Amino acid sequence: MFESAELDHDISKAAFRREEPKLREALLGAGKGETVNRLNEWMDPRHIEVQAFNAPSDEEAERPHLWRFWRALPPKGKIGIFFGAWHTEPILERVLGRISAARFQRHVSEIQRLEKMLCDEGVLLLKFWFHLSKQQQKKRLKALSRDPSTAWRVTELDRKLLDLHDDFAAVCEPFLRQTSTGEAPWIAIPGADPQYRYLAVGRTLLTALRERLDEKPVKRLPDRSPPLLPAIDNLNVLKSLELDQPMTKKQYEKAFDRWRARLNVLSRHPRFHDLSVVTVFEGNDAAGKGSAIRRVTRSIDARRYQTVPVAAPTEEERAQPYLWRFWRHIPRRGIVAIFDRSWYGRVLVERVEGYCSEADWMRAYREINEFEQQMAGHDIVVVKFWLAISKAEQYRRFKAREKVSFKRFKITPDDWRNRRKWDDYERAVCDMVDRTSTAIAPWTLVEANNKYHARIKVLKTLCEAIEEALKRAKKKRKKEGKRRKGRRGG
Amino acid sequence: MFESAELDHDISKAAFRREEPKLREALLGAGKGETVNRLNEWMDPRHIEVQAFNAPSDEEAERPHLWRFWRALPPKGKIGIFFGAWHTEPILERVLGRISAARFQRHVSEIQRLEKMLCDEGVLLLKFWFHLSKQQQKKRLKALSRDPSTAWRVTELDRKLLDLHDDFAAVCEPFLRQTSTGEAPWIAIPGADPQYRYLAVGRTLLTALRERLDEKPVKRLPDRSPPLLPAIDNLNVLKSLELDQPMTKKQYEKAFDRWRARLNVLSRHPRFHDLSVVTVFEGNDAAGKGSAIRRVTRSIDARRYQTVPVAAPTEEERAQPYLWRFWRHIPRRGIVAIFDRSWYGRVLVERVEGYCSEADWMRAYREINEFEQQMAGHDIVVVKFWLAISKAEQYRRFKAREKVSFKRFKITPDDWRNRRKWDDYERAVCDMVDRTSTAIAPWTLVEANNKYHARIKVLKTLCEAIEEALKRAKKKRKKEGKRRKGRRGG
Repeated sequence: MFESAELDHDISKAAFRREEPKLREALLGAGKGETVNRLNEWMDPRHIEVQAFNAPSDEEAERPHLWRFWRALPPKGKIGIFFGAWHTEPILERVLGRISAARFQRHVSEIQRLEKMLCDEGVLLLKFWFHLSKQQQKKRLKALSRDPSTAWRVTELDRKLLDLHDDFAAVCEPFLRQTSTGEAPWIAIPGADPQYRYLAVGRTLLTALRERLDEKPVKRLPDRSPPLLPAIDNLNVLKSLELDQPMTKKQYEKAFDRWRARLNVLSRHPRFHDLSVVTVFEGNDAAGKGSAIRRVTRSIDARRYQTVPVAAPTEEERAQPYLWRFWRHIPRRGIVAIFDRSWYGRVLVERVEGYCSEADWMRAYREINEFEQQMAGHDIVVVKFWLAISKAEQYRRFKAREKVSFKRFKITPDDWRNRRKWDDYERAVCDMVDRTSTAIAPWTLVEANNKYHARIKVLKTLCEAIEEALKRAKKKRKKEGKRRKGRRGG
Repeated sequence: MFESAELDHDISKAAFRREEPKLREALLGAGKGETVNRLNEWMDPRHIEVQAFNAPSDEEAERPHLWRFWRALPPKGKIGIFFGAWHTEPILERVLGRISAARFQRHVSEIQRLEKMLCDEGVLLLKFWFHLSKQQQKKRLKALSRDPSTAWRVTELDRKLLDLHDDFAAVCEPFLRQTSTGEAPWIAIPGADPQYRYLAVGRTLLTALRERLDEKPVKRLPDRSPPLLPAIDNLNVLKSLELDQPMTKKQYEKAFDRWRARLNVLSRHPRFHDLSVVTVFEGNDAAGKGSAIRRVTRSIDARRYQTVPVAAPTEEERAQPYLWRFWRHIPRRGIVAIFDRSWYGRVLVERVEGYCSEADWMRAYREINEFEQQMAGHDIVVVKFWLAISKAEQYRRFKAREKVSFKRFKITPDDWRNRRKWDDYERAVCDMVDRTSTAIAPWTLVEANNKYHARIKVLKTLCEAIEEALKRAKKKRKKEGKRRKGRRGG
């Protein structure tokens, strides 16, 4: 893989000086035409964001490990330069023997999917790999050490890395091979000669930007997704629910006091700080999401939760890959994040209303599962509710809302319009449940014609999920404790 | 993932009878229009190929494990129905604890890439998962056992599988989640009711075919591949070769006798039967591929090698994914397959001449690496030669061939045309070497201005690669022997 990168390029200072103005001119846009004008605009330092990733901050350590890259993504119209990205950690950990082959392989898959998603979202992803052969690396360190003015740049780590050169090669070669794809190939840059390096990166960037800008946009990509299972009979996961569940007001009040107390105690549990909770509320219009959410928030200390109402994306959010606006709200440790509507918008309203292409919502199932797996893998409890009411019950609630003046704002023409697409939404919900109810982040379908029953089921499910997670956390701690002890003993 | 699939569908015989003719009509094409006519044509049993995959035959066991699926792929215009495909083995092996988590994860990645490649090649891939809950499975076995006319259908394996139901669920759920993509999502079919099953599969197939046929073909997919590293200076892996290597005829003859004998002995080595060898010959026109190949074949017993000359694909080959015509020539154990030109055509002539889109040849690097990894993982020694001559040397050889009547057929207008694109080909070769010279299947660049030197370097490289592989095979055997002994001891 490093055949070209190991050649000893040596661009003379003179040649570089000859080339450099041309490159600068092109990158900075003294040329003509719209393309170069756009480039010019971009190449302005205000449009470049440089990010370096060192050890994660405490803010970052409390989130899934990809969180810090998501928050650093450049919006549309900007160039983000990442020094070391999601590739660095897995390679390093594997070389140092801190993660198993299986874990490493999972990282590789994760990276493949992340990069595919970014490319699908329109990101131009250029991955440069600066390569030095062992020989070249030795030479570089020697040269730096000899000169007193640069000797300080050679750290203990540099020397250690040189010793590990062969181990690195054994990990990096298959890593690069496996993460090099048509849309996001690795570009190995011979790292020995700074002039060469500069020209190679600059020209690649320039050519890539030009190519992308010159490209005629395709209106509609061909739909390569096969259709999902069509309805065969009148049975589906929603229709099989018994939506009218019995519960009187009195029963409810008693139960509410009980579950509220339990949730409160759980949220103050000492091990709760090892977790965070992400709850998603989705459901039919007027199914009672808001009132169910209030029963949750009334049960927890205000410093322990944050609610995230999800409406149309802001301008800033539209300039980012779809999931960006949800990643940014992943809570810190010990916090319950409550999403009032969520990332499922893509496979519900956006699908039904045609706001995105079929290819987009079809790939979203995969991306959402991946997102939730990232959370679950980081000890975040993901609890998802679909509040279901019948069509008749919805009609009653709409009408009732129109009558009560202070509730009238809650019912809009949109609601009536959505209602007309009831069957399409039902279909979308069933597909969503089938494709995203997973062992790590299952959907709970809540029969909500009786709102008392709905609220209690929500609280109960949430409590049980947290209890389960606390138990898992305890086991994990014990196991880690034992392992530590074992290590000390050995 | 199995929410819908666990519903108890029960299509009454009457309802089925009502539906069935409609479905049959649609599938068998009593309808109108071109679409249905095409469907009609396809639904003819002559256009459906049903494949079942049981334990691999000895023919199959001697090839990489995906080989039997490649050979079973339906050509364009046909429907292949696979009962159990590349998914079955990894799941089964993992449930039975025969493969590690890391190995299982590698299978998952491999499957993701295989299916992506198939979809990129235009295959409509429908993956049906027939799901039975544990309860339903129990009921089914009981019902079958009770009836003497069906009791024979219940095997010991069925009972064992029932016991393993929870283990299966634990492996299958994440497996399905990870291998479900936008282009090839899993479609879970409730498996309890045969009528339902039949309708569900039939309708999905019908809808999918209609959708694909109705789709307007997009002329050119947008190019999402960034450009590869541009030439910065006048140095590249080919230009850095010293093409004129000294060797006299006398030296050559002596060396040839020596290497020829060595290769012959190696090919008769008892452990050679645990291996196979795939050699690839690529190079400039008139670089001497043919004569180098003859030196190899003259060194081996005729029953031990097969040469595969690669020219334009046949009609049958054009109806298959690109790599199909190379998969079919993967040799059995103990055989040396010699490819005179190869799968690298896609990133050489097809790229330079524009026979395929940039997206196609860009993804080919990944697919080729995957292909060779499959081979290497199955103890196939992959040896790849690029025979390089200078532009001046090529001119001399072309002219010489034109003068000698019995060699005149070897020089065609194509050769002169290709020569005019010398720089484009050079660029393509450098990219090819950078992107596909891997630790498991490295390229050997052969300086071929002096054909004596070239031939000897080919023989020597081949011998050394086989020797290495024989050593590895010995080590592997020893290790396996130890493990077996260890098991017996325990």
